[in-house]
Amino acid sequence: MKTQEIGQSGMVASRLALGVMRIDALDETAATRTVAAAAESGIDYFDTADIYGFNAHALHASSRVFGQAWKNAGLERDRIFIQTKFGIDFGYDEQGRGAAHGYDFSAKHLLDALDGELEALQTDYVDAVLLHRIDTLFELDEVAEAFDKLESSGKVRHFGVSNMGPWQIELLQSGLKQKLEINQLQFGLMHTQMLDAEIHFNMADDAAADRTGGILPYSRLKHMTIQAWCPFQSNTEFGPFVGNAHFPELNAELERLAAKYESTPNGIAVAWILRHPAGIQPLLGSMNPDRIRDMAAGADVELDRRDWWSLYQAAGNQLV
Amino acid sequence: MKTQEIGQSGMVASRLALGVMRIDALDETAATRTVAAAAESGIDYFDTADIYGFNAHALHASSRVFGQAWKNAGLERDRIFIQTKFGIDFGYDEQGRGAAHGYDFSAKHLLDALDGELEALQTDYVDAVLLHRIDTLFELDEVAEAFDKLESSGKVRHFGVSNMGPWQIELLQSGLKQKLEINQLQFGLMHTQMLDAEIHFNMADDAAADRTGGILPYSRLKHMTIQAWCPFQSNTEFGPFVGNAHFPELNAELERLAAKYESTPNGIAVAWILRHPAGIQPLLGSMNPDRIRDMAAGADVELDRRDWWSLYQAAGNQLV
Amino acid sequence: MKTQEIGQSGMVASRLALGVMRIDALDETAATRTVAAAAESGIDYFDTADIYGFNAHALHASSRVFGQAWKNAGLERDRIFIQTKFGIDFGYDEQGRGAAHGYDFSAKHLLDALDGELEALQTDYVDAVLLHRIDTLFELDEVAEAFDKLESSGKVRHFGVSNMGPWQIELLQSGLKQKLEINQLQFGLMHTQMLDAEIHFNMADDAAADRTGGILPYSRLKHMTIQAWCPFQSNTEFGPFVGNAHFPELNAELERLAAKYESTPNGIAVAWILRHPAGIQPLLGSMNPDRIRDMAAGADVELDRRDWWSLYQAAGNQLV
Repeated sequence: MKTQEIGQSGMVASRLALGVMRIDALDETAATRTVAAAAESGIDYFDTADIYGFNAHALHASSRVFGQAWKNAGLERDRIFIQTKFGIDFGYDEQGRGAAHGYDFSAKHLLDALDGELEALQTDYVDAVLLHRIDTLFELDEVAEAFDKLESSGKVRHFGVSNMGPWQIELLQSGLKQKLEINQLQFGLMHTQMLDAEIHFNMADDAAADRTGGILPYSRLKHMTIQAWCPFQSNTEFGPFVGNAHFPELNAELERLAAKYESTPNGIAVAWILRHPAGIQPLLGSMNPDRIRDMAAGADVELDRRDWWSLYQAAGNQLV
Repeated sequence: MKTQEIGQSGMVASRLALGVMRIDALDETAATRTVAAAAESGIDYFDTADIYGFNAHALHASSRVFGQAWKNAGLERDRIFIQTKFGIDFGYDEQGRGAAHGYDFSAKHLLDALDGELEALQTDYVDAVLLHRIDTLFELDEVAEAFDKLESSGKVRHFGVSNMGPWQIELLQSGLKQKLEINQLQFGLMHTQMLDAEIHFNMADDAAADRTGGILPYSRLKHMTIQAWCPFQSNTEFGPFVGNAHFPELNAELERLAAKYESTPNGIAVAWILRHPAGIQPLLGSMNPDRIRDMAAGADVELDRRDWWSLYQAAGNQLV
Repeated sequence: MKTQEIGQSGMVASRLALGVMRIDALDETAATRTVAAAAESGIDYFDTADIYGFNAHALHASSRVFGQAWKNAGLERDRIFIQTKFGIDFGYDEQGRGAAHGYDFSAKHLLDALDGELEALQTDYVDAVLLHRIDTLFELDEVAEAFDKLESSGKVRHFGVSNMGPWQIELLQSGLKQKLEINQLQFGLMHTQMLDAEIHFNMADDAAADRTGGILPYSRLKHMTIQAWCPFQSNTEFGPFVGNAHFPELNAELERLAAKYESTPNGIAVAWILRHPAGIQPLLGSMNPDRIRDMAAGADVELDRRDWWSLYQAAGNQLV
């Protein structure tokens, strides 16, 4: 699989990453098989978060399953990248219902969360940690204290954010010694707000209403890698769009291009993201080994410009 | 009452300020009682504007009533901060109906407005003046000329803006010798656009549509103090939200926390704003001495993080 | 006619420019008459684009008609400014229907497009070229290569963009030797998104939803000239607004001010744009010599502030 540098971190990682949010729904054997399939496909970057465990109804649960799985799969720690996220104050009630109580970038919350992750992940460091969602109550010196401790203790090698815009990043960066290398944002053929507002700039239509503050050009300017979460989501009640009869036009185009490029619809949907010059790293959310292999194969497809724009339109978007 | 520095101005003022927009509805005795109540509660920062006088149907009318009231209340000029705002071209017709004709940052308009305010306020200087709303027709050298004259004559000590976003401030600041220390923006439990767009960043829902251009992190980055105007407004036809039966969920939470923190719903609504690390200074708009005392007492409450987020949700907002 | 410097390019051009998009609908005689009328009115700046040819159903068609017309009209090449735009991947099918296939800032596409324009325009250089709409797939080094070649070969003297926001411009500028001098954006009495979002900043209403990312103050800050395209469009099915019975309030105000300033409704609509201190250069889209003369005469009108704001409101906008 092709590789890319993540931000300016020196980490040279696979173009695709595996997001293990749903791995807590698998038993140990299945989880090991999933992680092994990803690794065999060339994926060496794995993303988790302290709050993942929505099936097990427990914090750190996905990281715990993944922590056993990468060991079982025989992966070597220094040949893979493990990334986690923290900063959401999340909990489960007695009925097992999870909910965010808010966000929390206090040093104590961040440090405790990271320690919990290391234990669950069966490792003594993570390659990267991201602030999961902005905590508007954050004190810059608390974040700086946490990052400094995490870096100097060797527990975290690189830092980043998730779901944040330019001025928020400018503010955080102004108080941190560590460069923010990553911004994890939802992006995919059916979640293109970053593009829509660019293309419809200064128009009166809905697509022109800015929801991302210029984060796409900003990220390129600052050499931050965008990681695309839920890249296959339709953002409707109907779930992922590939092979989904509710999205006939998009799937027809995915099929056409799968044939043209000798790939699969899943592969084409991945290739569409990789084609963007921002160097976006999709996080595959599938736990299905076959689907992971299909998607990973998409990393070798280089779409023509017109096919790229044709897919954008087939997803329901208008050019102007 | 706790204090804070306003911007980087050197002014160390009470965390709460009194906004005297409605003071023109009071007679001299009542106005004096209101100002005295605020001062006794520890409030030493007072905000007005040249156009206030909506009850008296006259420009400078609120400043005129306040100008007599602070004298009557026996306040010492050098122990209080008086701030005004200018730059709206506002007038009253023969029926007493007020309306904005536009905005006007010409040097002449600004200088005349400020002189009118000094006379009305019975003082020879104001501690701060804000450009009230952007005049898109402004010439930078006219604003610079006005500010220079106001500063060198001693009529104005510090400068700021109101209702403006980052690039507008960058443009103004680029041509001014004086640092812009303040941005007055509507903010409160039922006016949280600045937060909503951060939290819903890059989502497809209405709350994600950006209305504030990142002004919250920008203000922190630039060490500008945000002053919150109309912090108790529901922004509906039903007026202020505290104790208002149209907002049962929010009031239930305000009541719960008032009991927990031995405060009042008004106090909790104030404490919610003060808890934000941006150092937001709420402008109390009430002219009712008892309510002012309730609100002022809120400056001593320090809300827990979860209570803060719980209030945000009780006001009708979603976490993601 | 009054003049202004375009960006910081050294080009001192007429306040009004002629946009020749529709000139491909004219025969050679009519086209010559139109261009001559513009020149006699003092207009020395002409804007076209490689894709214009919507009547002739052919790329470069408008530039080709204009290329003959300026020669026929006896204009001297070094006394006029010719600007074109490129970067849209546009084509016509066998039925003559034109459509954008996408956008394309590859060096090859840009260089080929510019050569096509020079041939059509009967000139060996253009004074300025603009990137027509953002190509999100652009590689910065490809744009830089194209611009360097165009500049060093003498084919293009100055560079700019169209329909782009601040961070996009920051990104492009970061990789270019040439200063971006121009941003072409739709603007006029019935297309005021840039103003609306400023005036309604931080409000909950529709007008507050940001569609322009602060491009108006950004452009002033960076000394980029905004060119206003389609300044007379109503952005409705009813077409241009001047003299259009569907817009009675706006036309009544245009008539009132035409009488007051001894101008015409078209002249007043132009004067409204010119009054803005950003130094906006309207692109007249009319091919009608009389209307062009009316509009050009508007360049001599200097509207009072209140008349300017009154027009803004008559166009259906609210002050706050």
